[in-house]
Amino acid sequence: MNHIENMLKRRKSGFSLESDFYHDQAIFDLEMKAIFENDWVFGGNDCEIPKPGDYITATIGRNSIIIVRDQQEQIHAYLNSCRHRGSLICTHKKGNANQLVCPYHQWTYGLDGTLKHAGEMGSDFDPTQYSLKSVSLKILHGLIYVCISKTPPDFENFKTQVGPYIKPHQPFRTKVAHEDNIIEDANWKLVIENNRECYHCAGSHPELTYSLTAFAMPDDPRGDSFFNELMPKKIKDWEKLGLPHKPVPGGEKFRCIRLPFINDALSMTVDGSLACRKLLGDFTEADLGSVRMFHVPGNWNHFGSDYILHASVTPLSPDQTLLTTKWLVHEDAVEGWDYDVEHLTRVWKATNQQDAILAHNNHLGTKSVGYEPGPYAQSEFMLTDFTNWYAKMMENYLVNVKNNEDL
Amino acid sequence: MNHIENMLKRRKSGFSLESDFYHDQAIFDLEMKAIFENDWVFGGNDCEIPKPGDYITATIGRNSIIIVRDQQEQIHAYLNSCRHRGSLICTHKKGNANQLVCPYHQWTYGLDGTLKHAGEMGSDFDPTQYSLKSVSLKILHGLIYVCISKTPPDFENFKTQVGPYIKPHQPFRTKVAHEDNIIEDANWKLVIENNRECYHCAGSHPELTYSLTAFAMPDDPRGDSFFNELMPKKIKDWEKLGLPHKPVPGGEKFRCIRLPFINDALSMTVDGSLACRKLLGDFTEADLGSVRMFHVPGNWNHFGSDYILHASVTPLSPDQTLLTTKWLVHEDAVEGWDYDVEHLTRVWKATNQQDAILAHNNHLGTKSVGYEPGPYAQSEFMLTDFTNWYAKMMENYLVNVKNNEDL
Amino acid sequence: MNHIENMLKRRKSGFSLESDFYHDQAIFDLEMKAIFENDWVFGGNDCEIPKPGDYITATIGRNSIIIVRDQQEQIHAYLNSCRHRGSLICTHKKGNANQLVCPYHQWTYGLDGTLKHAGEMGSDFDPTQYSLKSVSLKILHGLIYVCISKTPPDFENFKTQVGPYIKPHQPFRTKVAHEDNIIEDANWKLVIENNRECYHCAGSHPELTYSLTAFAMPDDPRGDSFFNELMPKKIKDWEKLGLPHKPVPGGEKFRCIRLPFINDALSMTVDGSLACRKLLGDFTEADLGSVRMFHVPGNWNHFGSDYILHASVTPLSPDQTLLTTKWLVHEDAVEGWDYDVEHLTRVWKATNQQDAILAHNNHLGTKSVGYEPGPYAQSEFMLTDFTNWYAKMMENYLVNVKNNEDL
Repeated sequence: MNHIENMLKRRKSGFSLESDFYHDQAIFDLEMKAIFENDWVFGGNDCEIPKPGDYITATIGRNSIIIVRDQQEQIHAYLNSCRHRGSLICTHKKGNANQLVCPYHQWTYGLDGTLKHAGEMGSDFDPTQYSLKSVSLKILHGLIYVCISKTPPDFENFKTQVGPYIKPHQPFRTKVAHEDNIIEDANWKLVIENNRECYHCAGSHPELTYSLTAFAMPDDPRGDSFFNELMPKKIKDWEKLGLPHKPVPGGEKFRCIRLPFINDALSMTVDGSLACRKLLGDFTEADLGSVRMFHVPGNWNHFGSDYILHASVTPLSPDQTLLTTKWLVHEDAVEGWDYDVEHLTRVWKATNQQDAILAHNNHLGTKSVGYEPGPYAQSEFMLTDFTNWYAKMMENYLVNVKNNEDL
Repeated sequence: MNHIENMLKRRKSGFSLESDFYHDQAIFDLEMKAIFENDWVFGGNDCEIPKPGDYITATIGRNSIIIVRDQQEQIHAYLNSCRHRGSLICTHKKGNANQLVCPYHQWTYGLDGTLKHAGEMGSDFDPTQYSLKSVSLKILHGLIYVCISKTPPDFENFKTQVGPYIKPHQPFRTKVAHEDNIIEDANWKLVIENNRECYHCAGSHPELTYSLTAFAMPDDPRGDSFFNELMPKKIKDWEKLGLPHKPVPGGEKFRCIRLPFINDALSMTVDGSLACRKLLGDFTEADLGSVRMFHVPGNWNHFGSDYILHASVTPLSPDQTLLTTKWLVHEDAVEGWDYDVEHLTRVWKATNQQDAILAHNNHLGTKSVGYEPGPYAQSEFMLTDFTNWYAKMMENYLVNVKNNEDL
Repeated sequence: MNHIENMLKRRKSGFSLESDFYHDQAIFDLEMKAIFENDWVFGGNDCEIPKPGDYITATIGRNSIIIVRDQQEQIHAYLNSCRHRGSLICTHKKGNANQLVCPYHQWTYGLDGTLKHAGEMGSDFDPTQYSLKSVSLKILHGLIYVCISKTPPDFENFKTQVGPYIKPHQPFRTKVAHEDNIIEDANWKLVIENNRECYHCAGSHPELTYSLTAFAMPDDPRGDSFFNELMPKKIKDWEKLGLPHKPVPGGEKFRCIRLPFINDALSMTVDGSLACRKLLGDFTEADLGSVRMFHVPGNWNHFGSDYILHASVTPLSPDQTLLTTKWLVHEDAVEGWDYDVEHLTRVWKATNQQDAILAHNNHLGTKSVGYEPGPYAQSEFMLTDFTNWYAKMMENYLVNVKNNEDL
């Protein structure tokens, strides 16, 4: 612990982290507790479980969780571990069930988490003591966030600020058109750092940069004349449509902003054409740019006029990270007619693969004795936010551990 | 060490173990010493080495051992590590050799373990100091048990009690008809816990439950009317044949009992028909149920009228376990005539695969922060025995370490 | 640390190392610092980068390094880690570049290591603070040795003594005819110990022993009459040609000697025939035996009249080791005319595979509780040198750590 504390103490804001943060197993184990079991983590979209009894499973740190819609349309989250001997209860990524039955000994839980049946347990067994353990859950216009901690941090500020940006895209009226899972050979924080800047975009992402501007702020000091003319024009359009666009004051925890596309693109596709002819929500105007939204520790999203992209990061080990990407379109869009999966997914599949290579090389290089924390560029200000937040979470956790015998 | 001691102290008998027992590398390393190098472990059947010079290798904890029959028909066990620079001497699973020759520098040991030849060692080299290290060995009607500890625990009680049950099946007059090795992605203790109860059988093992009764005791409180009528009838038959059947008082270390099959089955096959027409030993009666015998840490066996099943567990890492299963038939049985390997092995191959999935899901679920030790059902009394024994072995080892500088 | 220190203290010279030295992750991590980042390590041959801008990458302990020839024909070595966020800069094994451009954000370094370009870094960014980190580099007639330590140990003694043996073979006028990389499932020290003795050759290396004598010294006490007649004859030939041959006093750090081939072999090939008709350097005489040269921690070489073999060892983990072998011939030799790659490489490809199996079995056997350090044979005197050197390096490092807060 001393080693981690010393590294946190000598850390300089605005610089990347010391090598051990990216490679050490003990630090990884601590992160699972201090970060992933301590904050709101993206769990999925409620459109994935439209009917009563529908459930999905998600991995939050070391934990599998079940997100399930009950008969009263209420959505719950539970730790996916039977109260008998701990087996996973739901072993698939999704399904539908009237009751949650453990496949091991058929302990049976209601969708409200209470234990309804457990065979051979004898007369002094009290089933009320063996309900599934709940996980806190919040829904933001369809986006499900879960928190394993018994004392979750505030969610309201995020909800209040980000809600108006997302609502017009009506995520709750979408469906998952495609899901992709890749394992990156890099520490999860390098995957996030890679995602939080577009300093590398021009050199690496030909498909993405057809539509995406590298500038992260409306008044980006790097902005070229094209961008500086485009921005006020688009702002006028958006305000006419009542669409919020200014960067929200999310501090180090979240970010939300609407930015225009370049090259007259309507969507994040290889040629800027729409990925889905049926627009989201009640949109009639296609040329909306996109809302970019990020929430720590590892959830980034793009909300266009035609599709939504959810990305989330699950650390597997110090040197492996699962990246899950979902493409969502209007719930009534018809595959083959309104959208083509290849056209819809090509930009981000290519971008994710390119980023995986960059993050892997970054991971390998930070093992070197030659590596020392380097200075972030001005356009990497979101990495400063991220590492500052990360360090604070770790520090707070270590302080709490010290004040608490029961680590 | 403190962490393990605390977990052992707060452990509640009758409940599953805390998560770290199933996942922690340091605990795994300790188990190799405290458990696998400290008690009698099943090493094979002496029918596997019928001729002088025949040997097999087995893995006991971290150690490869050689079990070899010498010219005087005496069976010995040695640690499979050359006294020169430590190489494995026998690199195959079985073979025949007049002398044990290290493939590295041809150091040559007699079957009695003494060093017979070592080239280029100079004149002050004393070969008598470099014999192979012996492993204690006991044979129970053909079943070989080995113990790496220099002070092996008692074997006589096990031998005396279990011997009469096994002897009529004459394991020493069998041959291995088939061997199967699978690696389960689960902690070895979860593999054992899975094996020690049939609470999960009805829900998971259609092939096994054709013949096997889920009831573990003659007076099982769950016993249905069918079982309660069957049991006394079978006991009368067995007593007429002089076959012992009552559960032996093996405490937490071993178990031995004869139980009947259901569905008029004669053997543990998918349809209850015999797996081998040539019966074991001197049996003329096929309808004998089976003797179920278990010995800690990880050896279970079934002795039917027609075949014997030996299963043993070798931990590979906290999350991987090798399960070795051998099917033995009468030494004179003829493949294709008396038995068909597919028919012989189908029930237990299927059952092992089903159990591997259950154990893996159990393993994954116990990683959750939602997992806490859960209560064993009444029919899981053997898990209470197992975990109590396990905890005692670990506690004793830790006490000995404390009293001994030389860990 | 205490455990390592105790093991070092009780170590007996002339015996193999205790088990943990071959298997413990903490010891492995320490070795990367104490050994591989603290001494001269073979990096390649300068003939691999003949033209300005040519570079190769090599792995030294945990570090990737770049070895590059600049426009002034000067060769430099740098740690392959961008000073921005640490990414690998050169991601291929070899290439040619006017400048070293990081693929992540295009930070651009001159071949002299200075930072020439870094976009978006703001006005108070001082590029002179962000040059690539140099690695010390020495060239011995073409052989490149690098040292990551800021205070490299002496190189001159090695250079002075070994130079005259190597120079006539003119490694600097060769080319790589073939490179082979295999991963051995054994600790790197067992790979070295295997290489440092030929006690095992007769039993394992039929291809190698056609040409190679098992005797390591001109006055080897094991020498047979054939060898004892051959040696003085060959010495006379060599002295006529002005070729040095006596073993150099390299102590525990290096070894260099010229020894004859047996069976009238001209080269280390399966039948003793030349591997390359075009002889090295200015040789006109083919029958020269070979110079055998070894440098700690893991570089062995053979210099024949027709080809040079460079072998070097890169530890990957306690139980995996990369072995890189390169076969070099005269720079003007023509493939298909002067040499055939299969004939050139067959002996050492076979030998390396045979050694990989021996080292793996040695690795497995040393995990046993039955393993204790065994006595080296007289012909294994180079293993005594190696383990003595190893222990000293580890001890010195641990003393320095104690005297230095900043591990």
